[in-house]
Amino acid sequence: MEIKPVLKDKNVVMVGLGLMGGALAMALRKESPNWIGAIDTNSEVLEQALDEGVIDQGENDEDGTRRILSEADFVYFCLYPRTTVNFFKTYMKDFKSGAVITDITGVKQILVDEVLPILRDDVDFIMGHPMAGSEKEGFGGANEDIFLGHNYILVPMPQNQPENIKWLKQVIYSMGFTNIVETTPEGHDKRIGFTSQLCHVIACALIDCKEERHLSDFEGGSFMDLTRIAMINAPMWAELFSVNRDALLSQIDDFEKSMKILRTMIENQDEKGLTERMTSVRKKRVLMEIDRKNRTLAVKNEIENKKA
Amino acid sequence: MEIKPVLKDKNVVMVGLGLMGGALAMALRKESPNWIGAIDTNSEVLEQALDEGVIDQGENDEDGTRRILSEADFVYFCLYPRTTVNFFKTYMKDFKSGAVITDITGVKQILVDEVLPILRDDVDFIMGHPMAGSEKEGFGGANEDIFLGHNYILVPMPQNQPENIKWLKQVIYSMGFTNIVETTPEGHDKRIGFTSQLCHVIACALIDCKEERHLSDFEGGSFMDLTRIAMINAPMWAELFSVNRDALLSQIDDFEKSMKILRTMIENQDEKGLTERMTSVRKKRVLMEIDRKNRTLAVKNEIENKKA
Repeated sequence: MEIKPVLKDKNVVMVGLGLMGGALAMALRKESPNWIGAIDTNSEVLEQALDEGVIDQGENDEDGTRRILSEADFVYFCLYPRTTVNFFKTYMKDFKSGAVITDITGVKQILVDEVLPILRDDVDFIMGHPMAGSEKEGFGGANEDIFLGHNYILVPMPQNQPENIKWLKQVIYSMGFTNIVETTPEGHDKRIGFTSQLCHVIACALIDCKEERHLSDFEGGSFMDLTRIAMINAPMWAELFSVNRDALLSQIDDFEKSMKILRTMIENQDEKGLTERMTSVRKKRVLMEIDRKNRTLAVKNEIENKKA
Repeated sequence: MEIKPVLKDKNVVMVGLGLMGGALAMALRKESPNWIGAIDTNSEVLEQALDEGVIDQGENDEDGTRRILSEADFVYFCLYPRTTVNFFKTYMKDFKSGAVITDITGVKQILVDEVLPILRDDVDFIMGHPMAGSEKEGFGGANEDIFLGHNYILVPMPQNQPENIKWLKQVIYSMGFTNIVETTPEGHDKRIGFTSQLCHVIACALIDCKEERHLSDFEGGSFMDLTRIAMINAPMWAELFSVNRDALLSQIDDFEKSMKILRTMIENQDEKGLTERMTSVRKKRVLMEIDRKNRTLAVKNEIENKKA
């Protein structure tokens, strides 16, 4: 598509205007949509977003919801997994024919099981997951800068329209994301169970296992880095862990196997074994750092090219 | 002491000129010592440091070592634990009478057991641990900026001279550290086993347990934050883990208890329990963040005051 800006003449609806919904709405505004509407149960948040010009209309009742959905060309679900499923069930008949729908839900199998079977044929739901967040919670913490240089996972299905996938990628890049990767629902839930959910479980366990507040006086950066994400949105992550239970348990068990191997080596004061294993770990992690640096460099070059 | 700069007329010797020894030497230079000497087995490193003006003399043989030690008012040990012990044993008779000695060793009980019993009465060895580092290794990665705003642990013993402790604190603050905390050897080894060593074990286990290099395509920051320190100096950490074995094993076991509790809750899909536990975790971690922000604010104010 040659149209620029990418949202020109489109009516956009955000379903859920929390930290992510708010930040995404801010980022979408730059692509000049016809209007941005938002649906949220919290009317104060809607008023604040209206005041700040982040959205053009806000709805928190059934009639209003049905009305703006029926006019929306692009619908962005920014809810917890079960609320996403319930919203689809309640409002399936209200989407505009031809609407492109996407979401940010941190688990995908539940959508495959409960949303795809009831999805109307004349709307296109392309599942996605922006890999960005913040320890802040709610619309008040929303900030579009959290997307710059980040990954975005897309989980396209055979029934998705190629031109809609292509268009959605343009929208995603326009918000500042750099790297779009595609995978299956199973691949998503498994990998996210590792890179995201397991990391949150570990961070929480590190904070959970000690009472001493002033531990941070005795650290050089590692401990605070490892536990930043323990400033966690508790009910949201409790639901994510629970909904993705089997994939997450399997990742915890893989991690625990490596912990046990290292613990045994430490117990045996096997310095040779530890050195070999950690030398291989260092090499693997350095390669990942190179991947990341290359991605960041690509963003910088793109920003420079846009300026020039 | 009113003398400024704090190292005026002092001869300083760095024992070991790796990443930390190099960075500390760079930071000490600003306090105008009479000269800075360095002892290292690697003559190329000494030449590079001489070329860059980081040190004024470098020694890598026994005679040279004895000569500069005998002239040094301040000796900074920047070696691995066992090498520190061996150096003390070999060169104990060569220190200048009245010298203040300190170290950066990541474990302290080994020094209490093997160095303090043989320490001469006319030198003052004050144990310490700068809580800063880098994933870079060796003198080539040295950079004094890594100290700004960081913690420094001191482990003073009854036999240390109060005026020397006071002077050493001035030296530490002059290098950019903000927060000096004092503890016992046992308190140090226990807490460092948690905030530093356990975090390194976890980071290594996270990298160790998967083969997939391109996992970083599927992450939003947490995974890379949690595993930065897996770019580890393998032989050094193998020695640290081994020398601090009992304290570290006890910390691993405490962490594993919390992991097990969380794992069971996830297995039972106990979202209420998870929410309660993670809400309490969030509160604890937010308080730590406040402590850290207050420390950072204190540094900024100090830098502003110096400018004014």
